[in-house]
Amino acid sequence: MAAEGVDAYFGVRSEHMRYLTGFALADGEDRVAGNSGRFLVSGDEVVVLADSRYRLQAAAQSPESRVEAVTYDLAEGWAAVAGGIGAKRVAAEAGYLSYQQWEELRKAAPAVELVPVSGWVEADRAVKEPAELERIQAACAVADRALAAIVRRVKPGMTERALALDLEWEIRTGGAEALAFDIACLAGAEAALPHGSPSDTEVACGKVLLLDFGAKVAGYRSDMTRTFFVGEPAARDLEIYQTVAAAQGAAIELLEAAARGERPIPSGREADAAARGVIEAAGHGEHFGHGTGHGIGLATHELPTLSKAASDDPLPGPTVFSVEPGIYLDGEAGVRIEDLVLFDPGSRRCERLTSFPREVMAVAV
Amino acid sequence: MAAEGVDAYFGVRSEHMRYLTGFALADGEDRVAGNSGRFLVSGDEVVVLADSRYRLQAAAQSPESRVEAVTYDLAEGWAAVAGGIGAKRVAAEAGYLSYQQWEELRKAAPAVELVPVSGWVEADRAVKEPAELERIQAACAVADRALAAIVRRVKPGMTERALALDLEWEIRTGGAEALAFDIACLAGAEAALPHGSPSDTEVACGKVLLLDFGAKVAGYRSDMTRTFFVGEPAARDLEIYQTVAAAQGAAIELLEAAARGERPIPSGREADAAARGVIEAAGHGEHFGHGTGHGIGLATHELPTLSKAASDDPLPGPTVFSVEPGIYLDGEAGVRIEDLVLFDPGSRRCERLTSFPREVMAVAV
Repeated sequence: MAAEGVDAYFGVRSEHMRYLTGFALADGEDRVAGNSGRFLVSGDEVVVLADSRYRLQAAAQSPESRVEAVTYDLAEGWAAVAGGIGAKRVAAEAGYLSYQQWEELRKAAPAVELVPVSGWVEADRAVKEPAELERIQAACAVADRALAAIVRRVKPGMTERALALDLEWEIRTGGAEALAFDIACLAGAEAALPHGSPSDTEVACGKVLLLDFGAKVAGYRSDMTRTFFVGEPAARDLEIYQTVAAAQGAAIELLEAAARGERPIPSGREADAAARGVIEAAGHGEHFGHGTGHGIGLATHELPTLSKAASDDPLPGPTVFSVEPGIYLDGEAGVRIEDLVLFDPGSRRCERLTSFPREVMAVAV
Repeated sequence: MAAEGVDAYFGVRSEHMRYLTGFALADGEDRVAGNSGRFLVSGDEVVVLADSRYRLQAAAQSPESRVEAVTYDLAEGWAAVAGGIGAKRVAAEAGYLSYQQWEELRKAAPAVELVPVSGWVEADRAVKEPAELERIQAACAVADRALAAIVRRVKPGMTERALALDLEWEIRTGGAEALAFDIACLAGAEAALPHGSPSDTEVACGKVLLLDFGAKVAGYRSDMTRTFFVGEPAARDLEIYQTVAAAQGAAIELLEAAARGERPIPSGREADAAARGVIEAAGHGEHFGHGTGHGIGLATHELPTLSKAASDDPLPGPTVFSVEPGIYLDGEAGVRIEDLVLFDPGSRRCERLTSFPREVMAVAV
C-alpha cells in the first residue's frame, strides 16, 4: 500500500474477505449479504463490516479484526468508517464495487480519495500455501471417488438431471461441504454446450456423455471433466476424443518439462498454445472456443489463466489450475477432458491432482 | 427510454437478462460467465451478448434476440456493439456494472454516453404476472411438502448438516429444479445467527431448531422459515416464539385489511412497523435487527422491501414478499417465522403461499 501511496485497502469480493479476514459467506450468500463482509485494511488494523445478521459470525470467524456495524446504505457510514481507520487515500476493488456505489462513497466522503485498483489480492491468491494445496487435493479426491461410484450406475434412458443428482449426492455425502459449482451432465449433442445445464435429455447409446463437476472442501474447490462413450463409440467421437486427449497431454508435457528445469517456465499463453496447436492441427481450431485452463482455489475461476489472451509472464508457483481443452461440434457432440494440475517449478513438481482414468471409457456396456 | 432521453438500455444483472430476454444462467454461473448474458435493448431490437461457450444456449433461449459474440474484454467490442444498435446515450445498470468496467466502456467509445440508472427493471419485476405467481406458488408447495416429510425424522443428536441435506434432498427430488438458496438449519444458540450455515452442531433437547429454506421452480423461488422446539420448550423460548408469531400476525392483518379495502395500501415501512411494534412492545426491539420482509421471484431478495428504511410509497401489486420477523438472543436462541404472502389489493387478495403450520410445534417427542 505504501508503494502505491494509499493508506488503506477497501475489499469487496467475498473470496478476498475470506482470504484476508477469515469471515466466510456461503456461495450465493453475497447476493443477499449487502455490505456485510466488505472490509478495510490499514497498516494497523483490519475492519470487517457486518450488519446485525452477520455480526456474531464475523466476530467468531475473524477474531483479529474489528467488526464494524454497517447498514444496507454503506455511504451513510462511510465517512465514519474510513475516518475511523485514518484513511485519506483508499485503494478500492474497482472490478467488484459497482459504479453506483463508487459514486455514492465518493460523494459521502469527499475528503477520502478512492483509488481504483485491481488484481492485488488476486495475484496473492494465485500462489498457494501448503494448507491451501491440501484442501484442493482433498476436494479433488472427493470428486474422483464420487465419479468412480456413479460411473457403473450409468444406464441408457437415465436423464442428465437424475445422473447429475446422483453424482452430487456422492460428492456431498463423500466429504465435501458443497459442490464447487453446479454439475454439468450433458448427453450427446448437449455436450457441445461448454456450459450447459442438466436437462431431461436422456443418456443414449452411441453418444457421448460429458460430466464437469467439482467438490468444495474447507472453502477450496476442485474441477474436473470426463467425457464417456455410452455403448459403442462413434468413429467421429472417438477421433475428437483422441485429439482432445493429445492436446491435454501436450500442455501437461510442456509444464512437466518446465518443472524439471528443461525449459523456461511457460506463460499462460504458451501453455494454452501447446494444447490449442494440437486441436488446430487436427482441423478443429474453430471448435475450441474457450481457454485451456484457469486457476482454482477459493473461487472456481481465478488466476492464473491459460488462454490466447492470457499474460505473457511466466506462470506463478506453487499454483493450481485446470487443463481442459475441448472440441464442440454444434448439434452433434462435444468432448472435454479436464484435470487440475499442481504446478510448482520451485520444488520441481508438476502433478495431476485429479486421477480418474483419462483413457477412452465406454459405460453401460 | 424516450422519457429519459436514452436510445438504449444496457443490462448486466442475470435476473434482468432472464426476465427480459429468456436467456437463463444457473445460480452462480454469472460468476464464470464473463460478459455472456449482458444485453442491450433499443426501441427496435434486443441484443444478447454471449461468448462461444454460451452462443447456442443464448440463441435457443432467446429466439427473438440477436446474439452477438463477445469476449472476456467487453470494452474491445463495445464501440461496435453500441454502434450496431445505433445508440448514442445508453442507460446502464450502474448498481451492477463495476466501476472498472464502466470506465473501460466509457474510454472505449467516447461517443457513446453512459447514463447511470437503477431500478428500472427491478420495479417491473416487483409486479408479478399470473405465470410468475404460479411458479412461486409451485415453489412454495414443494417446500411445504419437503418440510412435512422431514419433520418427523428429526431426532436429538442429528447434526444440522445432516438434517439440512435431508431437507435439500426432499426439495430437489420433490419437484424443484434447485434450492432457492442454501438451507439454514440452526440448532439452539446457532439460531441466533439470522444467516448462519449448517454445521456439525447437534439437534438437542430443550432447544430450538430453525429451518430457513426455499425451492426454485422454473426460475422462481420460495422462502420460508419455521422454528421448532426439540422436546419440551424452554419458557423463555416459548415466550419469544409467541411474540414473533404475534408480530407476523400483526403485519399480515394490516395487509389483509388493506386488501379488503378497509384501509389504505401500506408502504413497506408501515408493514415493517406493524411487526416491529409488537416486538418492541415486548422489549425485544434490539433483538430484531433485520427487515420484516423482501420481495421474491427470479431472485430470492428483490423489491418490494418491508423495513425501517423501505419506501414510503404504497406496496405494489400483484406482488409476493416474505413476512419474517425474528428475535435473536446472542449465544442463547433465535426464533423466526417466515411465510410468503401474495398481496394483490386490485383483486382483494392477501394470502399466505406457504402453508406449513405456524403453531408451536415440538419435534422428536
